[in-house]
Amino acid sequence: MLDKVPAASLTLDDVIAAHERIAPYVHRTPVLTSSYLNELTGAELFFKCENFQKAGAFKVRGACNAVFGLSDEMAKRGVATHSSGNHALSLSYAAGRRGIPCHVVMPRTAPEAKKAAVRGYGGQITECEPSTTSREAVFAEVEARTGAEFVHPYNDPRVICGQATCSRELLDQVAGLDAVIAPIGGGGMVSGTCLTLSNIAPEMEIYAAEPEQADDAYRSFKAGHIIADDAPETIADGLKVPLKDNTWHFVSNHVTDILTASEEEIIDAMKLTWQRMKIVIEASCAVPLATILKNPEVFRGKRVGVIITGGNVDMNKLPWIEG
Amino acid sequence: MLDKVPAASLTLDDVIAAHERIAPYVHRTPVLTSSYLNELTGAELFFKCENFQKAGAFKVRGACNAVFGLSDEMAKRGVATHSSGNHALSLSYAAGRRGIPCHVVMPRTAPEAKKAAVRGYGGQITECEPSTTSREAVFAEVEARTGAEFVHPYNDPRVICGQATCSRELLDQVAGLDAVIAPIGGGGMVSGTCLTLSNIAPEMEIYAAEPEQADDAYRSFKAGHIIADDAPETIADGLKVPLKDNTWHFVSNHVTDILTASEEEIIDAMKLTWQRMKIVIEASCAVPLATILKNPEVFRGKRVGVIITGGNVDMNKLPWIEG
Repeated sequence: MLDKVPAASLTLDDVIAAHERIAPYVHRTPVLTSSYLNELTGAELFFKCENFQKAGAFKVRGACNAVFGLSDEMAKRGVATHSSGNHALSLSYAAGRRGIPCHVVMPRTAPEAKKAAVRGYGGQITECEPSTTSREAVFAEVEARTGAEFVHPYNDPRVICGQATCSRELLDQVAGLDAVIAPIGGGGMVSGTCLTLSNIAPEMEIYAAEPEQADDAYRSFKAGHIIADDAPETIADGLKVPLKDNTWHFVSNHVTDILTASEEEIIDAMKLTWQRMKIVIEASCAVPLATILKNPEVFRGKRVGVIITGGNVDMNKLPWIEG
Repeated sequence: MLDKVPAASLTLDDVIAAHERIAPYVHRTPVLTSSYLNELTGAELFFKCENFQKAGAFKVRGACNAVFGLSDEMAKRGVATHSSGNHALSLSYAAGRRGIPCHVVMPRTAPEAKKAAVRGYGGQITECEPSTTSREAVFAEVEARTGAEFVHPYNDPRVICGQATCSRELLDQVAGLDAVIAPIGGGGMVSGTCLTLSNIAPEMEIYAAEPEQADDAYRSFKAGHIIADDAPETIADGLKVPLKDNTWHFVSNHVTDILTASEEEIIDAMKLTWQRMKIVIEASCAVPLATILKNPEVFRGKRVGVIITGGNVDMNKLPWIEG
């Protein structure tokens, strides 16, 4: 069984063990490049395509690490979580692969496509209001009722360790990176990136990209302590949640800078990626490209790994088309 | 200089020479799979992703083979073509790489995104009406005025030979295929596939997929001679053109069968591919998947190469969303 150690004590060995544990259940995703976007930004961009990942997002890495690290005794009672979407899909997928129940608390406003996919993987949904407060209250009830093991979408060392396998692969796939950039919501992917890079490539810059309209991580970073907003509104619906102690540990110690982009810049970058790279990405994963386009001086001449975190989009509601 | 030999006398050596000639200018595109679509179809599908190709489509292979096979003397006067879209982009791209002019006759109804992209690559557009008759008349005038070398979008052995490099790569990337399926319009990609497979893997089945609403190749195949329609209407706008003598040679001699799909089936398969595979593909390249879903008994249990021909889509006009 995988111990639930404090995030601060996680080591590279934990990442390597996680990578071996999850390998049978996740894809080694490809890295794509675009000469058009390189020309446009003046940087060399390497897109780590977790939109091609199992269940459509990187979150399956952390979910699988948590689920397959459970003792048989704990696994029997299943797992439970609250999530704005991709962690819910991923935990349902992981639980399904292990053959155990998965209980999910989701905001009633979450995209229908994501709810249907959670059910498709066998997850059992309980709806809450779209606020952090409501989500936590409803979840407490579900947890007490089922006795399932709580796997937090990001503030769980087992999850952070799973997400860390993504940048470990990226470093193996692309030599000589100067920087890595990933979107930041609760900070799970960014924390995983920090865990890997601070151990393997401590000189590499780590940028986090956040919507202006949900810029609590940016303000936390500048203030030196966690600032949490309740229910911010942004098209990047995976990035509405606040930092927590375990992710704050990594963000405050290892992140080079946090950059922000407006809703319009995010939508433009999302559409541009679909159009030029021919890949389907969520609004959340367009935030890094939006900030690169907005801050060319930060990235010009650098080799930059860009984590494309997921591709689960409601195809009937694209933000640049009036529905 | 590359001789313009009759299509019937093309050999595997011509394909290999084409592959070497175009290698510096085109991508070796990846092959993607989807466990969801495998389960849905009962077949093992291997998607050869020419939507990730330079200029967004396989057509750049044939265009580069023609352009880089020209003598310096001929190249000086440039190249010219008529095309419903991707060949225009591709020839403009190839000509740009060689630094020679490219004249393009395009239907005025072609997607704005494609016209803008042709101009972006330096192609010079003359518009015609959206019918084969008008296109050929306008083109004759352009050709006479410029003296440019005509590179037909598909009925040109140099082009067929270039397209043949796609299935040569696919066979190198995936072992033990039972069949390959590609969309058919004028038949350039299907002819190239026939050229490669009849030489390397003559036992492999070759399917062509066509919209019901532009099923001239299907009717030609059944009748045993070319039947051409003027200006058929289909969402698969790359597949409106008729077979010609050089492509008919390959289609009539080597194709196993031609399957058709309705507009609704094509749009459903297109949306399904975006949603589950997270890739942007044109309606034209959704036709093969639509026919596989419609004829499961033909493909069940087989390893099938599916050529995704291109990803140049007008993002403001998606067929499943009312604009």
